[in-house]
Amino acid sequence: MTIAAMHEGPLGIICGSGSIPLAVAAAVQRRGRRVMLFALRGFVDARAVAAYPHCWIAIGQFGRFRRLARAEGCRDIVLVGGLVRPAIRQVRLDWATLVEMPRIVRAFRGGDDHLLTGIGRILEGDGFRLLGAHEVAPDITAPSGALGHHQPDAEAAADIARGFEMLAAMSPFDVGQALVIGRGHVLAVEAAEGTDAMLQRVAALREAGRITLPRGVGVLVKAPKQPQDRRFDLPSIGPDTVRHAAQAGLAGIAVVAAGTIVAEPQRLVEAADANGLFVLGRAECEAG
Amino acid sequence: MTIAAMHEGPLGIICGSGSIPLAVAAAVQRRGRRVMLFALRGFVDARAVAAYPHCWIAIGQFGRFRRLARAEGCRDIVLVGGLVRPAIRQVRLDWATLVEMPRIVRAFRGGDDHLLTGIGRILEGDGFRLLGAHEVAPDITAPSGALGHHQPDAEAAADIARGFEMLAAMSPFDVGQALVIGRGHVLAVEAAEGTDAMLQRVAALREAGRITLPRGVGVLVKAPKQPQDRRFDLPSIGPDTVRHAAQAGLAGIAVVAAGTIVAEPQRLVEAADANGLFVLGRAECEAG
Repeated sequence: MTIAAMHEGPLGIICGSGSIPLAVAAAVQRRGRRVMLFALRGFVDARAVAAYPHCWIAIGQFGRFRRLARAEGCRDIVLVGGLVRPAIRQVRLDWATLVEMPRIVRAFRGGDDHLLTGIGRILEGDGFRLLGAHEVAPDITAPSGALGHHQPDAEAAADIARGFEMLAAMSPFDVGQALVIGRGHVLAVEAAEGTDAMLQRVAALREAGRITLPRGVGVLVKAPKQPQDRRFDLPSIGPDTVRHAAQAGLAGIAVVAAGTIVAEPQRLVEAADANGLFVLGRAECEAG
Repeated sequence: MTIAAMHEGPLGIICGSGSIPLAVAAAVQRRGRRVMLFALRGFVDARAVAAYPHCWIAIGQFGRFRRLARAEGCRDIVLVGGLVRPAIRQVRLDWATLVEMPRIVRAFRGGDDHLLTGIGRILEGDGFRLLGAHEVAPDITAPSGALGHHQPDAEAAADIARGFEMLAAMSPFDVGQALVIGRGHVLAVEAAEGTDAMLQRVAALREAGRITLPRGVGVLVKAPKQPQDRRFDLPSIGPDTVRHAAQAGLAGIAVVAAGTIVAEPQRLVEAADANGLFVLGRAECEAG
């Protein structure tokens, strides 16, 4: 560990659901920085965070988080993992949160972008520095080019280009940024259901004969929202994404290089190679 | 029947699935014109067409259709009803279709728009005149304003405006033109699954706590694709749409007046009133 790294204190990682917070924690430790995980109760598996210094907080316990983070010397904070908007009954409010309530209510209006941006502003107003997962652990984002052995053919390349175009067109509406496209035909668009549920829908529609494209045609295209503050909620893929894409009969997956987190890259590449799928990171300079 | 109507021969209605072809047939008869239904085998219920002069054709039997239509004196043709892209094994090809094959294959590429536009061009090249359901039966399209007793409140009105904006942005990509939006947040976007399946998804996400907006918030917004040739595939709503929207906990439904077919309007209004939903036809001149 460098002296600078010691001085900057541990990186605070507010952990939502899924394996990505742990991948970020591991990558940050590999770079020689200490971490302190703030595991969101109800979102995080206790066994998964056991390997790291951690404490538990609930959504709405802003005061508790602030106290713990200061006690641990965490100034830099990352917010990472699934954070499906909680039902009100799951929220535990503390005094600091109640004081912030007008700002938080404003943040809850509109889409997830506004919610997260609002939380970010509150943290920053309180002297924390909010960083993006891609900043603290750049090696967990998708590289440019193909991951694994397979490459898109010309048909898939045309679908990828059109898919990214459509995501860009939808982007101002703050909607889940993924879709499935095959031979120029948009088969599914993601919103509140999430990427895996969308891929399962494509598999079911294919099964029912409602999608008649042959297997091995179609691409999952996934992108950050254009105006999105990338410190929140970068899109992510992992081995499960590959597995669901294979079950949906797709040719592959295209994401934005450096703008997408790849969870468990080794297992993801193995799954892609085993299923004959390509996984492509498109450099942003390639975008139209 | 007027002499002019007798001279123009019966209107040929190529019937896909659902109740809308029959609503069109009834409306055309009310206006004093004879009809001849060409029921697509596998898409149409035999009992439903029994009340009208009809004959059966299969997808791919272009030669048979042409022969029958000429024998019946049908020059004007309407294509109406669900026409989910058929699996190749369901297609029965005849000679005339094989001769047209290169043009038909070209028509099958890309989205439904291209498919239907391609079929339309083939019919027109053969001397038929292709009309839109809204032209032959204008009284079955949504009027401007509220159908039934309920009206959108200010929150729903804002969702409707934003929903139509997003559909316009997606429109160049030839994708199913409906979505569900609540408090500015896009909850679901329709593609290959169709409107009813999308509404069922919203109901399931609400049930699972993945959508936490209160019941009675959210609007189904549905529009024709902007560059769409309205002689094909006008969007439609019916009592089932209202029932699914109610199960999804929505406040109401907004469609484009004169650009949307309303199947069984009486039952639709009864269902909307009974469930407390609004059904709004927005005049196109109101669009931004």
